Amino acid sequence: MTSKFRHVALVGKYQSSSASGAATEQSRQILFDIAGFLQQQGCEVVLEEETATHTGLQHSFRSMPVDGLGQHCDLGIVVGGDGTMLGIGRQLAKYGTPLIGINQGRLGFVTDIPLDDYPQALLPILQGQYEQEARPLMHARVVRQGETVFEALAMNDVVVNRGGTSGMVELRVEVDGQFLSNQRADGLIVATPTGSTAYTLSVGGPLMHPSIPAWLMAPIAPHTLSNRPIVLSDQTEVMMEVVSGRDISANFDMQSLASLLHGDRIFVRRSEYSVRFLHPVGWNYFATLRKKLGWNEGGY
Amino acid sequence: MTSKFRHVALVGKYQSSSASGAATEQSRQILFDIAGFLQQQGCEVVLEEETATHTGLQHSFRSMPVDGLGQHCDLGIVVGGDGTMLGIGRQLAKYGTPLIGINQGRLGFVTDIPLDDYPQALLPILQGQYEQEARPLMHARVVRQGETVFEALAMNDVVVNRGGTSGMVELRVEVDGQFLSNQRADGLIVATPTGSTAYTLSVGGPLMHPSIPAWLMAPIAPHTLSNRPIVLSDQTEVMMEVVSGRDISANFDMQSLASLLHGDRIFVRRSEYSVRFLHPVGWNYFATLRKKLGWNEGGY
Amino acid sequence: MTSKFRHVALVGKYQSSSASGAATEQSRQILFDIAGFLQQQGCEVVLEEETATHTGLQHSFRSMPVDGLGQHCDLGIVVGGDGTMLGIGRQLAKYGTPLIGINQGRLGFVTDIPLDDYPQALLPILQGQYEQEARPLMHARVVRQGETVFEALAMNDVVVNRGGTSGMVELRVEVDGQFLSNQRADGLIVATPTGSTAYTLSVGGPLMHPSIPAWLMAPIAPHTLSNRPIVLSDQTEVMMEVVSGRDISANFDMQSLASLLHGDRIFVRRSEYSVRFLHPVGWNYFATLRKKLGWNEGGY
Amino acid sequence: MTSKFRHVALVGKYQSSSASGAATEQSRQILFDIAGFLQQQGCEVVLEEETATHTGLQHSFRSMPVDGLGQHCDLGIVVGGDGTMLGIGRQLAKYGTPLIGINQGRLGFVTDIPLDDYPQALLPILQGQYEQEARPLMHARVVRQGETVFEALAMNDVVVNRGGTSGMVELRVEVDGQFLSNQRADGLIVATPTGSTAYTLSVGGPLMHPSIPAWLMAPIAPHTLSNRPIVLSDQTEVMMEVVSGRDISANFDMQSLASLLHGDRIFVRRSEYSVRFLHPVGWNYFATLRKKLGWNEGGY
Repeated sequence: MTSKFRHVALVGKYQSSSASGAATEQSRQILFDIAGFLQQQGCEVVLEEETATHTGLQHSFRSMPVDGLGQHCDLGIVVGGDGTMLGIGRQLAKYGTPLIGINQGRLGFVTDIPLDDYPQALLPILQGQYEQEARPLMHARVVRQGETVFEALAMNDVVVNRGGTSGMVELRVEVDGQFLSNQRADGLIVATPTGSTAYTLSVGGPLMHPSIPAWLMAPIAPHTLSNRPIVLSDQTEVMMEVVSGRDISANFDMQSLASLLHGDRIFVRRSEYSVRFLHPVGWNYFATLRKKLGWNEGGY
Repeated sequence: MTSKFRHVALVGKYQSSSASGAATEQSRQILFDIAGFLQQQGCEVVLEEETATHTGLQHSFRSMPVDGLGQHCDLGIVVGGDGTMLGIGRQLAKYGTPLIGINQGRLGFVTDIPLDDYPQALLPILQGQYEQEARPLMHARVVRQGETVFEALAMNDVVVNRGGTSGMVELRVEVDGQFLSNQRADGLIVATPTGSTAYTLSVGGPLMHPSIPAWLMAPIAPHTLSNRPIVLSDQTEVMMEVVSGRDISANFDMQSLASLLHGDRIFVRRSEYSVRFLHPVGWNYFATLRKKLGWNEGGY
Repeated sequence: MTSKFRHVALVGKYQSSSASGAATEQSRQILFDIAGFLQQQGCEVVLEEETATHTGLQHSFRSMPVDGLGQHCDLGIVVGGDGTMLGIGRQLAKYGTPLIGINQGRLGFVTDIPLDDYPQALLPILQGQYEQEARPLMHARVVRQGETVFEALAMNDVVVNRGGTSGMVELRVEVDGQFLSNQRADGLIVATPTGSTAYTLSVGGPLMHPSIPAWLMAPIAPHTLSNRPIVLSDQTEVMMEVVSGRDISANFDMQSLASLLHGDRIFVRRSEYSVRFLHPVGWNYFATLRKKLGWNEGGY
Repeated sequence: MTSKFRHVALVGKYQSSSASGAATEQSRQILFDIAGFLQQQGCEVVLEEETATHTGLQHSFRSMPVDGLGQHCDLGIVVGGDGTMLGIGRQLAKYGTPLIGINQGRLGFVTDIPLDDYPQALLPILQGQYEQEARPLMHARVVRQGETVFEALAMNDVVVNRGGTSGMVELRVEVDGQFLSNQRADGLIVATPTGSTAYTLSVGGPLMHPSIPAWLMAPIAPHTLSNRPIVLSDQTEVMMEVVSGRDISANFDMQSLASLLHGDRIFVRRSEYSVRFLHPVGWNYFATLRKKLGWNEGGY
């Protein structure tokens, strides 16, 4: 029985030039093995271009840039951590390519297949047995004097924050044009449910199940103690205007625009695209939470 | 021009026998004035029975028990605080009666019309100019050995907690039958968006806009520091099973069942009913938040 | 070379009648072994009376009630968890008997010698090689209409809180007679540095190094978001007066007085006694914190 | 009856060139009035040099740089906010000059005399009726390859943090040479009790009474949820070593050194100097807390 997915994109961690020779050699071997396994299942394997170059596998397999993968492939397999998965997810979102994540080290929130176990986990998925979920993306842009000067998609969060040696930033927040509040803080995060296990968790935000159609807005070190995280509908557009502060930046999943000006407005709305993740049957968000957060292990 | 609502229920704070004579006299005068105003607008006024008795207005106006109001009236006006409003809201939910809240003292989250200003605020509403919102209700029950031993509706929250002199409670939590976690804490709160400005806020929960179709589950003084508030779909049923602890109670908006037994299961799901609130045109949830939480007043 | 401590009290967990036969048998064996080891080092072993009875060792060793141990022994060895250690510590404080904690299961904050390893750890201590630290005790009392109706020592904390089905408690707090605040909350905790790793940690309190001469006062689920934990000098007397609420109790390390009345005043001051703990040379408070709180293990 | 303080330094807010003409004119008038009042009490008034220049009062009164004030004056009066007070406090600490704070706008934590009321408040203080308190200062320095490359005093806090567009910083923390933890976070704050009402409060730290001889170490947005604020003895030296991260800075009360290198070590210990504040008799730290934090005003 052969795979229901015929053209499978294979993407590794962008560990590029800085990785040691040994790490590269190990990555090459891992990707080579997975590619072989996929070919045995009747899939055509296409390596992501940079992955191919960095591992030296560009002569063993066909390779394409990410956009090519989106047009050509009907499945993407990412080998790495959550960061790699989110980066590729953002780029492939507009093609609707479903993604599977294999983690090389520790379990990730979205890279849930352990490397040791990948053949047993992948086989049923390739044969059409899987759980699918769609994670929303944010479309964010910086508008300066009426013009969009920076825009990007984000899967985790949009962060507007102060620089390292400057004082607080003050942001005026509106939701669908309605004034919410002026926030004085180190910064402000607007996160997706996916992002609720990332930065917002560190500043006291709640966990949000991926099925919740909401943004979580959470201040970083707010001056006013009653400025609490707030859950807003993801059907609304959130606007943050820079009122005061120095050396302020906007960060969309770490894609940054530095040196914001007073009056700059950052708009966040739901993208028309989502990212599709495939998980083994029986996959369970709560089980991942328990493992990642160390619940029920007798500790603190 | 006369009111679009013909039969208007008028409900006061249940201040009953413990209120001083002066307070009662004041309440009587307030209700008497409002009733007169409503009659001028062409409404039939029906007092809630206990309100009528406690204020001595039972001979001046028709009165009915709450269920009668639900069957007979097409609008309810509540004079009091959020607690009164939530109590009446729960009882009238199945009749679909819309509610307006007039606060006697400080602004409430859902009693948003100041007493001083009620004629100006009520007139347009009676003439059909208003903003309407529906707040979800939780249906909660305690199941002991397969049998429901206690059930009630709640607008704010369902709380399972330890007694005053006992140690932690341990609760096993499932969501639609999927295991979430074992929680060891003083207790566990499951709240609606309406309840997110009440008890959960005190234990570190986020604010949730009323439009979010979600429950907020928040532990009270959790033993495990990574046991954080979590936002769950309100389409799911949350189950909390008493695993260990002494002197445990279930509290549904303060309607309590004490002395829970190990093995007792508390189920929370969305009620088929909602509560309808009417607000003056231009009413704005965020403005209420700002005032109630003291934002943007230069303080902490 | 023989022990510098001649009369050693041996105390087990008060697992009493509820423990299974197998657990009791295991405890008996453990205590029997440790006692034998101590005798080999030239110590007289005296069992705590209840420990002796519950393990059936009352005929194998001399036994005494706790006060007798305090008068007779120059060292106490506690086998159990932190709870056992704190309970005995409170009782022996006035005798100045130093204590060593052997944990049967997981590492405790103050029971830091693993059972597996006790001979290697105890030998040098018995020979005078140890780190000593003194932990402060709180003396707490409830005063009703000018009369003390309840008093006790506490090593962890003094907690005044609401009952399981009642609303908030309101407490008026004074420090050395100066008004601090009126606290409306589920309750209020006054903790020692020892207690800062217990209940207060669950309500958002900081860790306090045992050397800090301070109380930590922390509200449980405070109504006012700016009511934050506060660190106060342990040279001050803290007073909490019950202003309102129902079904309120005072809990001194879980020694409880229920049904407090409005006007009752709970006073907390530093006891003249401290508890002395002996640790192996090289013992380090921070290492214990790291292990207990799961720091630096790559997790959350 | 004349002042017990003969040479009084008068210091205004450094509002320098950016202040509008009207603000400068107002400041000039205020300082002129206060100076006149002081002269009436028999004091020689010496203006701080920059204050004199910016207000144009350099010809009306003697003026000196801050160090000259420290050598010459036996009292300093600061007109401005807490920031001005802390800045001058740091500079005058080594001279032991006591300071009085007059706030121009809202009440400060340490500038507690309202401008409206200054003659009534100052008179008794000048005559020797006051409450005095000494606030500790931190001495902090950055050591690079064994050499001190930056050092300064701080009254509020020492902050090591990431830049605006970079990821987490990792810091290795030692206390008197003992390893405490590796902290991965946006940054780490070490604060005095004075600083406990400033930045640390925004990241979840407790309040600390000024009498507590302790540092408060608090992480900013810690990756590990169990990394909680910790209270450490101010007799210890805290060391933070930059392990990883980009664009990291050290900020000592906002005196900054940017671009720290991996391996740089920031040392914080108690300065030999303290700052002396004089308050009106009856001044009370708790009353200031209540006002600044909005306690007991029926709000959140």
